[in-house]
Amino acid sequence: MSQSFHPPQRTLMGPGPSDVSPRVLGALGRPTIGHLDPLFITLMDDIKRLLQYAFKTDNELTIPLSAPGSAGMEAAFVNLVSPGDTVIVCQNGVFGGRMKENVERCGAIPVMVHDRWGDPVDPGKVESAFKAHPEATLLAFVHSETSTGVRSDAATLCGIAKNNGALVVVDTVTTLGGIDLQVDNWGADAVYSGTQKCLSCVPGLSPMTFSPSAVERIQNRTSRVQSWFLDMQLVMGYWGGNSKRAYHHTAPVNALYALHESLLILEEEGLEASFCRHRENHLQLVTGLEALGLEMAVDPTWRLPQLNAVCIPAGVDDAEVRRRLLQEFNLEIGAGLGELAGKQWRIGLMGHASNPVNVQRCLTALRCVLGR
Amino acid sequence: MSQSFHPPQRTLMGPGPSDVSPRVLGALGRPTIGHLDPLFITLMDDIKRLLQYAFKTDNELTIPLSAPGSAGMEAAFVNLVSPGDTVIVCQNGVFGGRMKENVERCGAIPVMVHDRWGDPVDPGKVESAFKAHPEATLLAFVHSETSTGVRSDAATLCGIAKNNGALVVVDTVTTLGGIDLQVDNWGADAVYSGTQKCLSCVPGLSPMTFSPSAVERIQNRTSRVQSWFLDMQLVMGYWGGNSKRAYHHTAPVNALYALHESLLILEEEGLEASFCRHRENHLQLVTGLEALGLEMAVDPTWRLPQLNAVCIPAGVDDAEVRRRLLQEFNLEIGAGLGELAGKQWRIGLMGHASNPVNVQRCLTALRCVLGR
Repeated sequence: MSQSFHPPQRTLMGPGPSDVSPRVLGALGRPTIGHLDPLFITLMDDIKRLLQYAFKTDNELTIPLSAPGSAGMEAAFVNLVSPGDTVIVCQNGVFGGRMKENVERCGAIPVMVHDRWGDPVDPGKVESAFKAHPEATLLAFVHSETSTGVRSDAATLCGIAKNNGALVVVDTVTTLGGIDLQVDNWGADAVYSGTQKCLSCVPGLSPMTFSPSAVERIQNRTSRVQSWFLDMQLVMGYWGGNSKRAYHHTAPVNALYALHESLLILEEEGLEASFCRHRENHLQLVTGLEALGLEMAVDPTWRLPQLNAVCIPAGVDDAEVRRRLLQEFNLEIGAGLGELAGKQWRIGLMGHASNPVNVQRCLTALRCVLGR
Repeated sequence: MSQSFHPPQRTLMGPGPSDVSPRVLGALGRPTIGHLDPLFITLMDDIKRLLQYAFKTDNELTIPLSAPGSAGMEAAFVNLVSPGDTVIVCQNGVFGGRMKENVERCGAIPVMVHDRWGDPVDPGKVESAFKAHPEATLLAFVHSETSTGVRSDAATLCGIAKNNGALVVVDTVTTLGGIDLQVDNWGADAVYSGTQKCLSCVPGLSPMTFSPSAVERIQNRTSRVQSWFLDMQLVMGYWGGNSKRAYHHTAPVNALYALHESLLILEEEGLEASFCRHRENHLQLVTGLEALGLEMAVDPTWRLPQLNAVCIPAGVDDAEVRRRLLQEFNLEIGAGLGELAGKQWRIGLMGHASNPVNVQRCLTALRCVLGR
């Protein structure tokens, strides 16, 4: 290649990244300033406030981690888990499995609660797991399973953990900005997300929030956090409330300009209005897909409006359809992940990309490529 | 705040981030495409090739890590170190201390080789450390100490490690693109850098390269890498040579556009020409600083041309000078770090920012603010 890269203008309707708003791309390209510049500190403060709004939390420790959502997941575990701890991990898709990996790498013992990929986490099974393992100090589950398009009942699951004296880690990578997320009301203790889903920001950062109980556990650890980069006691020194910021690492300045702009757009629209819009466009898409004879993979009660799992009809060549959508229509939809590869498509309507134009574009392209 | 953030146009002459070229900012703001898009895969391949050029290496595992340089440091250690290993760590500034932290958090035993902050690493002491600890499996040192402005003799240090059968981790965060770096000729095994120094790209990524010996050690590990996000066996699945890329995490798409453009600029100029330019502007700056009666902190043999440590004259108010440079001249220079806080300034001439205009601007501003 060895020449400047000029990407085409795709329409991103996969599981993320989603289409980034021109306002956000504009912010991204503004002049870089120093990560300890007084003006940058004011930006950091405003990002914290906007993240608190988006997460519906008053948590002081609410920050964007300088790495993608999978690092956010790891940050939640390495800070809250100590070697030998028992952690109840719910798995109903790919990302619950990744949680298990993280727990094991912390030297802790995962107790798995399995549900079928495509179903929500079963609260009854979580109750049983706590009965069988009263020593468990943490519950972890995925609110919006990006691999299956399924929402789980976060309020109920958090309540079970509280009743059993455990803290809760909640994966909200695909949730934030798309469907309701009530960190404080639910009593979630460590919550991480991504920027490239319903915030419609560029990928690379992980918004996170830790409850006062989580901070207390971190401060009372007897073993050091195994990761230096993800150690919240160190990260707090830079993002913390006091005016003197301690250098920890060089913040990704321009990515934070973009995150700030995307959060501002969310605040301008309003959270509830954004949720309504996601729901409305989802319903239009489902109507259109069913009119094409396609079948949704998830029960309506648990469907994510921002990520639509669709069964691939028998006899249809999965890869060829996605290749034609991309090449002929500049339209990206998602393949199935893990055990759902080849069986489902994942059609995202996330953030800026959740709009009637995209719904129509996707339906038209699918009709054409499927010959229906 | 709650309105779009419009940063001023600073001149960044601190320890990084350095001024980002308009070409790089332009690339950064281009439309986001999917991280598994076939066009993105061609970009990844070109980034790998350009990084091999910049690192002077044929290493197959040469990638940009999706997180800042401090995560690059951690990736080097968590992949190459197993619990109980002995690691010889050289410290002649802040970042050697951070290496020690990383080694300890891997459950390994650091053997420290200390040199005065402001001096290079003493190869004789490293020889002695290997004699005293023949069981050491790894040597780690910082090539360009960002906290002191000092270069160490990387070729000699790598040679000592080889002679003792150990692998070598080299921190080249401030080196890459600014002064000579010969990964293959030196025999360095795990080398990490940052994007926000002499590449003049935005902060947030860590270019890395691993030698075949390093890859072999990673593949022969008996204990799992403690970090999921930084586990090179998993990262290789996405960045690896085979055509089928496995999803690991969502790559920071736009940041990689920017990195590609910055590497392209480096290739267009040519490595040796870039080194000459850094040296030339450094000499001009030193001449000017000495004409102002200021004293350089580092012996000429070991001075980094890209990061100039200057003694703060007696009676001068460090913070007030830097505040005035920033507010009156939009010029950022660096404070002293760690034990050098209040004693030295660090004036960067990195990448795009290493040019005669900046040399002049800095000298003029300092003359004015210092009243000389």
